[in-house]
Amino acid sequence: MLVSLGKGTTTVAKQEAVGLLIVYTGNGKGKTTAALGMCVRALGYQWRICLIQFVKGSWKYGELKGLKALEPLVERHTIGEGFVGILDDTKEFEEHRAAAKAGVELALEKIRSGEYPLVILDELNVAVDLGLVTTEELEEIVAARTEKQYLVITGRGATDWLIEQADLVTEMSEIKHPYQQGILAQRGIDW
Amino acid sequence: MLVSLGKGTTTVAKQEAVGLLIVYTGNGKGKTTAALGMCVRALGYQWRICLIQFVKGSWKYGELKGLKALEPLVERHTIGEGFVGILDDTKEFEEHRAAAKAGVELALEKIRSGEYPLVILDELNVAVDLGLVTTEELEEIVAARTEKQYLVITGRGATDWLIEQADLVTEMSEIKHPYQQGILAQRGIDW
Repeated sequence: MLVSLGKGTTTVAKQEAVGLLIVYTGNGKGKTTAALGMCVRALGYQWRICLIQFVKGSWKYGELKGLKALEPLVERHTIGEGFVGILDDTKEFEEHRAAAKAGVELALEKIRSGEYPLVILDELNVAVDLGLVTTEELEEIVAARTEKQYLVITGRGATDWLIEQADLVTEMSEIKHPYQQGILAQRGIDW
Repeated sequence: MLVSLGKGTTTVAKQEAVGLLIVYTGNGKGKTTAALGMCVRALGYQWRICLIQFVKGSWKYGELKGLKALEPLVERHTIGEGFVGILDDTKEFEEHRAAAKAGVELALEKIRSGEYPLVILDELNVAVDLGLVTTEELEEIVAARTEKQYLVITGRGATDWLIEQADLVTEMSEIKHPYQQGILAQRGIDW
């Protein structure tokens, strides 16, 4: 099957889309950045993208502004109120848990709608690790993906089960970080 | 110092820009994808980006088309003719070496121009590893960076010297790859 690539005469053989479950984990920088890079690729196909952030505050000015420039292709949602202090505070935990649960519902809705060839659940692994998203909910999310969909899950601490389920898993390891040298968060990198 | 963020009244304290030398290395997928993600962040600041690919053919349709959509902010150059067979063929090696040398000149010119807050040298590590770019040339490139510039170098096999010089180094390790399961290169991921 041949498809036209915009104006002009260029054509390319179209492969039947087969989606993947992709996991970016590990303690190094680059997980969310790679997820952003997926958006550039998807942009090339004019895919609709749904991006749900499970940790508020982990996204900074530059990337938010950059994603805004990619609208309306990229639809972005932020879940919860940040995870500071949750381990010490039962009330806060319940609030965060409720927010995370709403995030899971939203993710399931977006995945099941079939309208987004690319769904990115940023830092979901962290939410699972903190117990804000249950392993059952994670399983429900993974099960909801259709074969043609790309589902990208980021965050350190991916569970063994998720790694088992995934098609592509990359561990980002921190070899060297600017904080080690006392350099503050950099514009365009950290914020 | 306060800067205006487009229309409206929003302002943000502007931090004096301090660039970083960033290296994405390792055998896992995500290195070039993270470099693409850097473009989204830079887009947020309306930074001009110069992206030079040292391995032809490693970039696929989706990302090229996606980057095209980010023009004119992103300026992209492809170096060389692909590296197939170079180890067996002296003549080809010389041709590739000449192309790589031209790529180094181009990179130096772009970095020194001061016009690109973000310069990405994609797969440069591979070119160094193959001997197509000398370690002296790599040193010249790194030395050319000003303190305010972000220089991103990707590719497996980063040299110890480069890791020593870099501010941020992430190693992408392949935990699981779809090829292991016999899934072909996927649209939107590999091409």
